[in-house]
Amino acid sequence: MLATRIDRLTSSLVRDILAAAASPDVISFAGGLPATEALYQPELAALDPAMVAQALQYGPSEGEPALREQVAGQLRAQGLPCSAEQVLILNGSQQGIDLLAKLLIEPGRSVLLESPTYLAALQAFRLFGAELHGLEQGMGIDADSAMDKALGHNPCMVYLNPTFQNPTGHCLSAAERQRWAAKLDRSGTVVFEDDPYRDLAYDAPAPAPLVAHLKQTPWVYQGSFSKILAPGLRLGYLVAHRELFPHLLRLKQAADLHSNRLSQLLVLEALQQGRLQRHLARILPLYRARRDAMAASLSRHLAGLASWMLPQGGLFFWLELQRPCDTLALMRDLLECDRVAVMPGSAFFAAPAGSSYLRLNFSHADAGRIDTGLALLAKRLHQAG
Amino acid sequence: MLATRIDRLTSSLVRDILAAAASPDVISFAGGLPATEALYQPELAALDPAMVAQALQYGPSEGEPALREQVAGQLRAQGLPCSAEQVLILNGSQQGIDLLAKLLIEPGRSVLLESPTYLAALQAFRLFGAELHGLEQGMGIDADSAMDKALGHNPCMVYLNPTFQNPTGHCLSAAERQRWAAKLDRSGTVVFEDDPYRDLAYDAPAPAPLVAHLKQTPWVYQGSFSKILAPGLRLGYLVAHRELFPHLLRLKQAADLHSNRLSQLLVLEALQQGRLQRHLARILPLYRARRDAMAASLSRHLAGLASWMLPQGGLFFWLELQRPCDTLALMRDLLECDRVAVMPGSAFFAAPAGSSYLRLNFSHADAGRIDTGLALLAKRLHQAG
Repeated sequence: MLATRIDRLTSSLVRDILAAAASPDVISFAGGLPATEALYQPELAALDPAMVAQALQYGPSEGEPALREQVAGQLRAQGLPCSAEQVLILNGSQQGIDLLAKLLIEPGRSVLLESPTYLAALQAFRLFGAELHGLEQGMGIDADSAMDKALGHNPCMVYLNPTFQNPTGHCLSAAERQRWAAKLDRSGTVVFEDDPYRDLAYDAPAPAPLVAHLKQTPWVYQGSFSKILAPGLRLGYLVAHRELFPHLLRLKQAADLHSNRLSQLLVLEALQQGRLQRHLARILPLYRARRDAMAASLSRHLAGLASWMLPQGGLFFWLELQRPCDTLALMRDLLECDRVAVMPGSAFFAAPAGSSYLRLNFSHADAGRIDTGLALLAKRLHQAG
Repeated sequence: MLATRIDRLTSSLVRDILAAAASPDVISFAGGLPATEALYQPELAALDPAMVAQALQYGPSEGEPALREQVAGQLRAQGLPCSAEQVLILNGSQQGIDLLAKLLIEPGRSVLLESPTYLAALQAFRLFGAELHGLEQGMGIDADSAMDKALGHNPCMVYLNPTFQNPTGHCLSAAERQRWAAKLDRSGTVVFEDDPYRDLAYDAPAPAPLVAHLKQTPWVYQGSFSKILAPGLRLGYLVAHRELFPHLLRLKQAADLHSNRLSQLLVLEALQQGRLQRHLARILPLYRARRDAMAASLSRHLAGLASWMLPQGGLFFWLELQRPCDTLALMRDLLECDRVAVMPGSAFFAAPAGSSYLRLNFSHADAGRIDTGLALLAKRLHQAG
């Protein structure tokens, strides 16, 4: 009686972990949650009452015109030429994934994506029946030849997260972006660049978006205010090639008419008044310090048990365990006995991976709890080994 | 290259009308917009800062627990037995339509719905490939035998708006609800009751929801805060049969993770503090007066040109024109020459209708503008005839 796509809705394991990790007595490395003290506090009382009154009525499906202008201006400054007419305001960037799935996927069509990649993208593309083809990258594999091979599947979409990737933290260089863009241009497939972590750059600014190097093939680029302002506002945006925009707009209208106008107003204020930049200047040192604290604690407790790279941005360390390990069982033991939450790496792969991985978020817990949690993780790994 | 469902995205006519109708010099009967003076003004400055701070973080896909409790309590009071565990908070009730389409529809499956019905439901169900079967009702047709006949299509879903229906304004009696529920129970199909207008009852309270009479077949009921508080908050909810809830929750998570938490906080406050009831007590007389003003102006200007029923709730009059008329051309002339916006009835039918209809919203314009606009409509109809 239910649609067959419902059979493809994957298990609620991840939701279960995140729900358990929300308990205050748990040291959580599991989610992608901003630190509580890094959440942007909107000045509700300072909002113009006339603008609030207007924001209570139905609004345009595209989003507020002034916010679309701000987003386009910001993207141009980051090296992506675009206009406000190409910007669609989203109810968080997860919605962009749903809209792109509707735009392009039919059962049996191929989607090419990094392996590992953002797990909720895997879930959404699977729901619509895509065959997922993983592109190994960034961990020493020859990414260019992997891309050539994967394009042979004739994908309807290539989903990429080139900047401080979730879960690996990897960031493609400008030269890699150019080479990949040239290959993708020849393929003619739609390129979907998901870029929620760009502004969380701790060492150097990220290179311009990959889609900025495309000359022919249609593309969609999306960003989010969840990681740099506050996820509870549920606000993101996409920018689409002019050919794709009208379809995405109609899909947005059919999905929920338009995005929350109060959130749009609050984010517009943050952009117009320079509050976003001041907020970023405040949270970047905090996140950099936590990243460095996690790096130090990893070296202290997990040397010889796992390998990792120092992420130059984003919110995660990606650990490859030295010895194969049932990371699901490890996760359960850690959560139940030690009150530490980690995310098993297997959730991020389209197909079973050869090695055992863990994703560790460094933004949510403070340095002391990071060290305590990693010591407990190391103890479990020693026991397992 | 695009998914075939994109070919089924219907024209943007309605969006064009609504966009044109938003101009302040237009007398708009076209949308379903609450009156500007009837929008709930949330007391942003009065919100508990600790609750606001908490609402900035990621939240549960189900929605805020306290809001789910409030919604369930309200529905039980309206005669629908349910618990908070069955409530899913939505980013507006249009989202519920998208989720139900994902849950049940595959290309070629039948969906049974009233004819006419809410046009954005037609669009969303078509997008997913449903074959739509209209159930004529409420305008003098034998609804029960129409229902028997339509159930022969073996629908995967029956979508109903039994209370102050959009567009007809029709309200099924308690006895009709019981008879329909008995038939639907025997069919075993999923019943999806969409109920955004229930609280806008001008003459007597609406009968209990139709799904409250179901004993066996799975059901989903949804409501909205858009018409009774403010659409810009984009907040609605669904309540689902226990069998269906877990799937809908996962679909919600895949669609946008969770609903806007600030809006949830504002609506929760409105419910807990009794503000919603006080707001309703204030806006019902306003809407009743506008309905009566439109009824008087219709009698004054359109007697002999159209027939209509006095709606006992909701936001619309539904006019059947005495003579067949190209209502699209009529709409365009009215908008361009007279600056009056109406909605052609054809947009609300799954299949071409035998007669010509117009839907007229009475909530947005004041009594003076209603009379001016209807005089201009009558003049055009006289010219056309």
